[in-house]
Formats: sequence, C-alpha cells, structure tokens
Amino acid sequence: MVSHSEPPKEDLAAVALENKIEEANAIINGTSDAPKVQELDASKLVVTLADPNARQVPDEATANAGDETICTDHMVTVSWNVKSGWGVPELKPLGPISLHPTASVLHYATECFEGLKVFRGFDGKLRLFRPNLNAKRLLMSTLRISLPGFDPVEVEKLIAKLVAVDGAKWLPKTRPGSFLYIRPAVIGTQSQLGVQAPKEALLFITASFMPILDSPAGGMRLHTNPEDMVRAWVGGFGYAKVGANYGPSLLATNEAKARGFHQILWLYGQEAYCTEAGASNFFILWRAKESEGGKLQLLTAPLDDKLILDGVTRRSVVELAKTRLAEEVEVVERRYTIDEVIEADKEGRIVEAFAAGTAFFIAPVSQIHHRGTDVHIPLGENDSGVYTAKIKSWMRDIMYGNEQHEWGIVINEEDEAAAGQKRKREQDDEAKRE
Amino acid sequence: MVSHSEPPKEDLAAVALENKIEEANAIINGTSDAPKVQELDASKLVVTLADPNARQVPDEATANAGDETICTDHMVTVSWNVKSGWGVPELKPLGPISLHPTASVLHYATECFEGLKVFRGFDGKLRLFRPNLNAKRLLMSTLRISLPGFDPVEVEKLIAKLVAVDGAKWLPKTRPGSFLYIRPAVIGTQSQLGVQAPKEALLFITASFMPILDSPAGGMRLHTNPEDMVRAWVGGFGYAKVGANYGPSLLATNEAKARGFHQILWLYGQEAYCTEAGASNFFILWRAKESEGGKLQLLTAPLDDKLILDGVTRRSVVELAKTRLAEEVEVVERRYTIDEVIEADKEGRIVEAFAAGTAFFIAPVSQIHHRGTDVHIPLGENDSGVYTAKIKSWMRDIMYGNEQHEWGIVINEEDEAAAGQKRKREQDDEAKRE
Repeated sequence: MVSHSEPPKEDLAAVALENKIEEANAIINGTSDAPKVQELDASKLVVTLADPNARQVPDEATANAGDETICTDHMVTVSWNVKSGWGVPELKPLGPISLHPTASVLHYATECFEGLKVFRGFDGKLRLFRPNLNAKRLLMSTLRISLPGFDPVEVEKLIAKLVAVDGAKWLPKTRPGSFLYIRPAVIGTQSQLGVQAPKEALLFITASFMPILDSPAGGMRLHTNPEDMVRAWVGGFGYAKVGANYGPSLLATNEAKARGFHQILWLYGQEAYCTEAGASNFFILWRAKESEGGKLQLLTAPLDDKLILDGVTRRSVVELAKTRLAEEVEVVERRYTIDEVIEADKEGRIVEAFAAGTAFFIAPVSQIHHRGTDVHIPLGENDSGVYTAKIKSWMRDIMYGNEQHEWGIVINEEDEAAAGQKRKREQDDEAKRE
Repeated sequence: MVSHSEPPKEDLAAVALENKIEEANAIINGTSDAPKVQELDASKLVVTLADPNARQVPDEATANAGDETICTDHMVTVSWNVKSGWGVPELKPLGPISLHPTASVLHYATECFEGLKVFRGFDGKLRLFRPNLNAKRLLMSTLRISLPGFDPVEVEKLIAKLVAVDGAKWLPKTRPGSFLYIRPAVIGTQSQLGVQAPKEALLFITASFMPILDSPAGGMRLHTNPEDMVRAWVGGFGYAKVGANYGPSLLATNEAKARGFHQILWLYGQEAYCTEAGASNFFILWRAKESEGGKLQLLTAPLDDKLILDGVTRRSVVELAKTRLAEEVEVVERRYTIDEVIEADKEGRIVEAFAAGTAFFIAPVSQIHHRGTDVHIPLGENDSGVYTAKIKSWMRDIMYGNEQHEWGIVINEEDEAAAGQKRKREQDDEAKRE
C-alpha cells in the first residue's frame, strides 16, 4: 500500500547539517536556544603545571627519530556530556587517556582532529598561523560525526594557552625558524556499544615535535589510486577532517610506498578528476592551451562538491596567488582530470606542481604515475619551481615574523610565563602546607 | 615529459588486498614466509581471575537501562608490534584501555570490530553461532585498514575461553533463552601522529549485556537516506566492519530518528539501489511480476560490489531459505532499486520485509519512507510475517539448542570452570605466601 504523506524537507542529511550549522552559528553568536548546558569556556581553564625539570627537551633530530611522537609537558582536556555540556577545561601534565573498552571512539570512529603549527619567529616571537580557520573546521568536522558543538574561538584560546605555557621551554628563542605541531581532537567517549551519537566526548590538545616534510629530495612522487579504491565520494565526508578518511586510505598508500612513491594522487569518478595528494591538497601550475589564451594558471580542485579538505594552506596559497601574482597567474578552482594533466604534459604546458597542507607545508611534486604513464615535472634550483618557491617563501615570512601579517597571530607568552611561575609557587606553597 | 615505464600490475589496491589475503592464507595454512614474528597463539593465554564476589550480575532490564554497556568480569587483550609480532594473550579483570593522546586509533580510525552473541540454551548449554565467520571477517576488516593479520582460529579460541570463564556467572543456567554480546576489536595503538600504518596494535574482546532489538512494536520503520549522504560506495570499504563506516552515518540516522523512524535504508547511486538498513542487511520477500513467473522471491543486495557487509545473519538466512524453503521461495541476490520496491508495493506484490544482523537479529520492517512516498508492509500475527517468523524460529532453535546443528558451537564451560577454580586456589595460595 503506497500512501503519500505530507512531504517534509526531504533532504534529510542536508537538513541535519543545516541544523547543525545553524546550531553552531547560534553558539558563536550567543543566540542559541539549545537546552541550557554549559558551553565551552576557555576562561574557566584550570592549570596544573608539570615539574619543569622532569623532562628534557631533545634536539629535533632525536625527537623525530623514534616511533613515538614527543609531546610537550602539558596537554589540554575538556570533557563533555549531553546532560551538563562542556566541563571545566584543564591544562595539565601530559598523560594517557583512559577509555572503557566499549568507548565509542574505539569502535565507531567518532573522532575528528585538526593540525596546525606554532612557529618561533626570527624576531623571537611565537606565532600561530590562521588558527581561527582550524578551530572553525574542527567545529564542522565535529558536527559531521555527531559530536558536540562549541564556539571555535574558545578552542583558539585553549590552543594559545597551551603554546604560551610550553613555548618558552619546548620552542625556545634559541631555535628561531622552528615549529611545534598542535593537534586538537574530539572523540566520543561514551562506553556504550551500539551505533549511536555519543552522549559523552572529550576534546584534547597536544603540542609535539613533527619532522620537516616539505622538501623530499628530488621532489614528491605521486602514484594515482586504482579504480577500485577511492578516498572520498560525493555524499561522503571527504571535506571533513574525520578519522574515517584516514585508516582506510593506508592500504593503497603503503602499496604505493612499496613501489617507491611518496603518496597517492587520489582520483575521483570515471572521469578521474584529480582531488588530493596523500592527505594534502594538490596544485598544478600550467599554461592554458593556446586556444584558451595560453595564460599561466594555478589550478586546484574545487571545494563545492565536498570531496576535498578545505585546507588552510590551500586557501592561503589561493589568496596569496590572487593578490600577489594577479598580473602573472590566474587562479583556477575547478574539476580537472588526470587526462588533462597528461595532455598538458605532452604539450609541454606543465610548469610546476606541489602538494599543500599543514604537515607537508608546500612540497614540490616531480612525478605522477598513472597506469603505465609517467608525468615528469622538472624541478628548478633547490628542488623547487620558481613560483612554488615564491609562494612558500611568502608564507614562511608570515609564519616566522619576517613579514608582519594578519595571518600570523602572536602569542603573548611573557604574561603566561609569569602567571605560570606565580601559579607554580602557589602550588608549591600549598604542597608544603599539606 | 611523458614516458612509459614498464607497466606493473596497475591495480594498486586490489594487489594490496590480494597480497594481504595471500598473507592471511599463508598464516592460516602455516606456509607464511613473512619475517618470523610471533603469531597469535591462544594456547599461550595467561589467565588472571577477578574476585568473583566483587561484582553482582544485574537483571537484564537493569543492565540495559543505563548509558553504559555492562561487561562481564573479564576481558581478553593481546598486544602486537611490528618487530616482535603478537604478544602473550591475557584473560584478565575488565579494565580501562590506556592510550597515549597521539595513539593512531584516536585520530585515524585504525579500528575494526566484530559482534556476535553467546546463547544460554534451553538444554543448559552455552553456544556461539558460527563464530568462525566472525573471526574470518575480523581478519578481513583488520587487513583492510592495515592492521596486523592473524589466524582467525586463534581468535575463535580466545572468544570461547572468555565465554567459558564468564558464562556460568553472567549467563547462568537459570536464564535459558538469554544471550550476551561478544565484541572483539582490533585498534592501532602506536603513539605517533602522521597518516601511516600503525606499528603497534591491540586486539581485545569483551562480553556484555545488550538489549533485545529484534521486535520493535509495530515493526521497524525505515527512512531512505538523502542523495547527498551515502553510506558506502564502490571502491570504498562498505563490506568491512571498520569504524569508518559508522561515525559518519550517525547524522542522517539521528535526523531520521527525530522524524520517528528507526533506521536509514541506505540507497546507492543514481539508480538508488537498496543496500543496508541501518547497520543491518535488508531483505524483501515479494512475488515476482506475473511476466517473470510470479514466484515468491526472497530478495537481498549482492556481495560482489563490496558495498554491503557480508553479514553472518544474512548468510544464514540465505542458506536456510535455500535449503528449507526451496520449494516455496527463490532466493535472489542482486541489485534492486527503491523504485522496484515502490512499484511492487503498488502492485500488491510485497509480502514481508526484515532487517537482519547480529544486534537486531531478524527485525520485521513495516514501513519505508522514500521522498514523500510511504511503503507500508503489513505485519502478521505477533508483529511478524509468516516467513520472517519461520526463519527466525529456525535460527533461534539452532542458537538455543532446540535443534542440534553444526552452526551452534557448544562451549565446554565445565572444564573451564574447574580449571578456573584450580587457578584461583593457586593464585590465592600464592598471594598468602607473599
């Protein structure tokens, strides 16, 4: 028996996402009419400092040599539950996370994360690079997997607090031009089996060493994915930084590595559109066909089909190229196929190519292997094309304070260090009294 | 510059999977020439018993009322690392899992699981239902996300050990017709950030209460997913029981629940093929068109495109229908669209429908909502169609020992209980001596 019910807005998930975005905006604008639970509030942060002498800071080579990520002295954690909302944020000594074996995150991938860096400038200052974009994307990813929303500004504040506290020791002024990697994450912690949105969650932030990945000798070599294994698809979650995008991608990546390539160039659909390179965005600088004017174009995949991550590095490259290379280069965000790339290569129109992301920064690409065909992209001096080097240098200058720019957010660590010393004295005094 | 290299086997991921399957078979057949690391070996199990009086067994209603899954006294854990292989399996008191904040599973969804039940038979015996299928699927899922392989028989042995030890207390003979839920899982535990196959992992198994979900009053009501949110896709991992299939599905499911439906009927592609119902397989019993002979057909989605899970319940339904209903019902595994279902409904050809999986067992479906159109499927007596009830009853009989069948694996808990008492005495004696 078929009946026609009053048609509701049929686009169930779109509606769900819209609702979530409205909810997020309401939180951000302070107009939320959600049930009154505690919102994330960085000003409530409780600080418990580690013994500053307990751990030594290794040099970068040693720190990155092992199979473990070396984190700084402290981490930030905030727990959430559906009844009372966000708890008191804590900045405390780095330590393990204890989960019940039935915790949601261990079974259902209710997890998302962000990655950004904090830089020790050549002027001695500590800077984050556009952290507001990471915090907003974390909110979007969090809502995509039905974890709790928050005002992203509060996450930015918590990140700033962590790096302010650990910056002086772990990224000292004696190491200008260095960085630490910041990893905020949100996970579902409710210890109940069954496929459902978790009623408990944990937001946590670590800061750690990370190897420099932006200049593989001879350039980055990419192998396209095979037809039977795709990274993301329309209607999926390729645009969100959720754990589910990563684990299943390892198999193809490992096989590519075994064949001497660095990363997969992920293609999409029967048309084989180029999307991402490994877990980075991908750019090609080429000359348009003569019939299309022959102009120099910086080409990258678009955001609107939600297949790729809206990378902070990607966005910055696009914006810098549009403002600083406008006379020479046209920035084009559109779908383009691997066949177009191969054709351009045959016609000698490819100038440069690079991967762009926080971990790999801007890494020149020298080869793309696609089903028996190799595209070789010549590298210039210092293993980099001229435009790639120029864009990279602009970004480095902003990150390390050679150029004062609104994207480089200076962290006030002096106040923090003083406050930290005061707190430590108080804690010590209290300990003595007990 | 385009060059044509010697074409390797191009199907990178297929090759990767084939290699993994060969590797798995080599492990199973003892012909592996992988580097000599320790293989998973259940015979090495070290048992540390909990104080049997520390926790009381709640009644089922109480156990399932809260927001936490109530597990039994013990769990099994086995750790693995890439250098030495699988460690010593431990059966020990239930406790938390401690992970470094940078552990792979918390960020990259390097996680997969299984779900099966242990039944207290009406003959007093404890039975698992086809645990070999779950153990094999766990291996397949594990390899799909680049976690370590093992001989599935060893996992079966570890499951049997856990239920043998905890069965007498947690699923006592005074509760015939009851079950516990077994959850084996494998997670990546290496504490290193970066998208890579984990060098450390943990296999763990819990046994717990789970609510009875197979008979929602009035039948299960399904809402089709919207076009902009799909569960799985060709070239993805819909066939593997990996965490990545679940977290991202919650948003659409929650919205459907808010509209009074139980689960999503996941459609695939522009053709809108029916695939899964929630996290269960989906069956329709209908009469074929008169032009096609008008025969009664039990229809379900096929496995070959790897969109859906190869469910143990699904497989058992198919096999039982083929052997016991052969004269009345033709079993058809093929792609079919929601439009075919709507058309069949208009023509009065739909007889029954049900979801099939371990958690939901066999749950009759009474309604499918698809973009303004409702298909209502009449339920028979006791909220179930006749054939649905018949198949369900055959399976229950096997699970609870009313029918002796090779699918029902009897657990020898007497020996285990005696050995456990002996071990406990030894441990107590040892503790006294210390």
